Amino acid sequence: MVSAFHSWNTMIYDVDRLRSKKILISGGLGFIGSNLARRLVDLGSVVSIVDSLIPEYGGNLTNIVDIQDRVKVNVSDVRDEHSFKYLIQGQDYLFNLAGQTSHLDSMRSPYIDLDINCRAQLSILESCRHYNPDIRIIFTSTRQIYGKPDYLPVDENHLLRPVDVNGINKMAGEWYHILYNNVYGIPAVALRLINTYGPGMRIKDARQTFLGTWIRNLVEGIPFEVWGGDQLRDYNYIDDVVDALLVAATSDQATGKVFNLGGHEIISLKDTAQLLVQVNGSGEYTLCEFPADRRKIDIGDYYSDYSLIHRVLGWHPYTCLAVGFRKTIDFYRKNINQYL
Amino acid sequence: MVSAFHSWNTMIYDVDRLRSKKILISGGLGFIGSNLARRLVDLGSVVSIVDSLIPEYGGNLTNIVDIQDRVKVNVSDVRDEHSFKYLIQGQDYLFNLAGQTSHLDSMRSPYIDLDINCRAQLSILESCRHYNPDIRIIFTSTRQIYGKPDYLPVDENHLLRPVDVNGINKMAGEWYHILYNNVYGIPAVALRLINTYGPGMRIKDARQTFLGTWIRNLVEGIPFEVWGGDQLRDYNYIDDVVDALLVAATSDQATGKVFNLGGHEIISLKDTAQLLVQVNGSGEYTLCEFPADRRKIDIGDYYSDYSLIHRVLGWHPYTCLAVGFRKTIDFYRKNINQYL
Repeated sequence: MVSAFHSWNTMIYDVDRLRSKKILISGGLGFIGSNLARRLVDLGSVVSIVDSLIPEYGGNLTNIVDIQDRVKVNVSDVRDEHSFKYLIQGQDYLFNLAGQTSHLDSMRSPYIDLDINCRAQLSILESCRHYNPDIRIIFTSTRQIYGKPDYLPVDENHLLRPVDVNGINKMAGEWYHILYNNVYGIPAVALRLINTYGPGMRIKDARQTFLGTWIRNLVEGIPFEVWGGDQLRDYNYIDDVVDALLVAATSDQATGKVFNLGGHEIISLKDTAQLLVQVNGSGEYTLCEFPADRRKIDIGDYYSDYSLIHRVLGWHPYTCLAVGFRKTIDFYRKNINQYL
Repeated sequence: MVSAFHSWNTMIYDVDRLRSKKILISGGLGFIGSNLARRLVDLGSVVSIVDSLIPEYGGNLTNIVDIQDRVKVNVSDVRDEHSFKYLIQGQDYLFNLAGQTSHLDSMRSPYIDLDINCRAQLSILESCRHYNPDIRIIFTSTRQIYGKPDYLPVDENHLLRPVDVNGINKMAGEWYHILYNNVYGIPAVALRLINTYGPGMRIKDARQTFLGTWIRNLVEGIPFEVWGGDQLRDYNYIDDVVDALLVAATSDQATGKVFNLGGHEIISLKDTAQLLVQVNGSGEYTLCEFPADRRKIDIGDYYSDYSLIHRVLGWHPYTCLAVGFRKTIDFYRKNINQYL
């Protein structure tokens, strides 16, 4: 990956608060974690990555091949309390990105999801409380915890009504962070991410986002399926999400708060597919009925109101879909074999 | 305990849907569970109780001494998946009342709270899904998951912002029930209880409610402490809560929903103490500063809006505080030794 992929918005955060700082990224070999690591080493941070490298999850050593000499990698799982007790010591920041993100996996194996998204989060926070209470923690939550929206766009005042085990456990995990901030003074902030895409995203399957398989099929020249089609969505390009993580990390006004991210283009699934085909120059998709077992958890239209983080921290998404999709497709044209 | 303690409101629920029905009560030796069991055996239900009898929790065999020949007691813990797989089979209803309820215990031992209030709830629901998907489940949640209120009275549209580990885990436990209702069609309903008091409440310590220790001290003639004093609260007498559980169990309109309970008298802590002393005929209390370590989780005024359950299910609280306090104090004058 080269810096041409970057569309940084460093104006909004204080680079001095990151330079030479010790930073731990859980899930750091995943899509978002590795892009964050790349940005941070370029800004002069001392980056350590911890990742379980579980094949079904997002971690992939290819993601850091260009920065492997500039980061320290520790393979361990967030459920391993012992390694985290050691790893968090001396760190200035923890970007706590590791998690189980698959809806289907959470319904099939609810205890695994519970152990990763609840128990491990508690144990990370307990480690910070006992061994490094001054560490700043940035937690990645998800818009999925809102469930089927009552109104659009969905702001942070919307009730949380998760529609799967994963959503419930992520909701709890988010709140543990806010609680430890409020009660123990461990500075923590949570961002509720929407569909994030870009170079490094998981395309092997739909465990992270349906966009992954769409892009894979496009690049491989295979038609892809669009379930439904009229549902409205928003998306964030990876560089915008990295911006948000860094502004949340470096702003005192973020502490103890929960912020939505969100996209500035609201687009139907069908039009998303159409745009991808157009950017790619070719490709086919078929519109299908929503499968019966998924219909129960279909949330219909969804897009986020990100005015709070804009107002408080100055963040807004920067990359338009046509540009982001082009960068992503170009990346997978070159690198698809490392992601299958 | 004698039937003079009862102030039933059987008009609002269909007794025929309970008579001869097989009913399992988890936490059935606790305060609420045992009062529910007594009502149900009187209505002709076939009642089984499951309780862990962990000394720090609410279970107490004294609670069912008058009905011990009419209920079946199984000592096992909700964390014991195996016993629940068996116990839920053939049951028409599960009143799922077992839980860890102490704020302090949840902060000291967050994993225990997680195992009881999250993991065990998931495993009970998984058991129901596999072995008895038609069972109706009534789950007791808590108003504590709302945290510090934005407005009063607090209705079900208020955001959930739990202020302790217990609140976060109860929030997740509640949502597992609603999720299994929505996705797997296991009929479930959740009630968010406020401070509940009455004969059988835990008075050994403040693990369930501060009212327990106040009443104990009153009966023992020892002054009790009121922290703060101006905070407004509402309370429910046990018989009203049993009414609510039964109307939630027997009404199809309750399925898949979450309802607040609430009191019809809003009263400050100071006035609550005053009323207790007055009902008791004597007693002393001192007003103290809120302890520093508790101030962080002090929620200020709190009282619930129970208009939704009133509108949908016809429930409202029936017992006024002066009457409820009298019944409770009278009970502990006679029975205090069994509750210390």
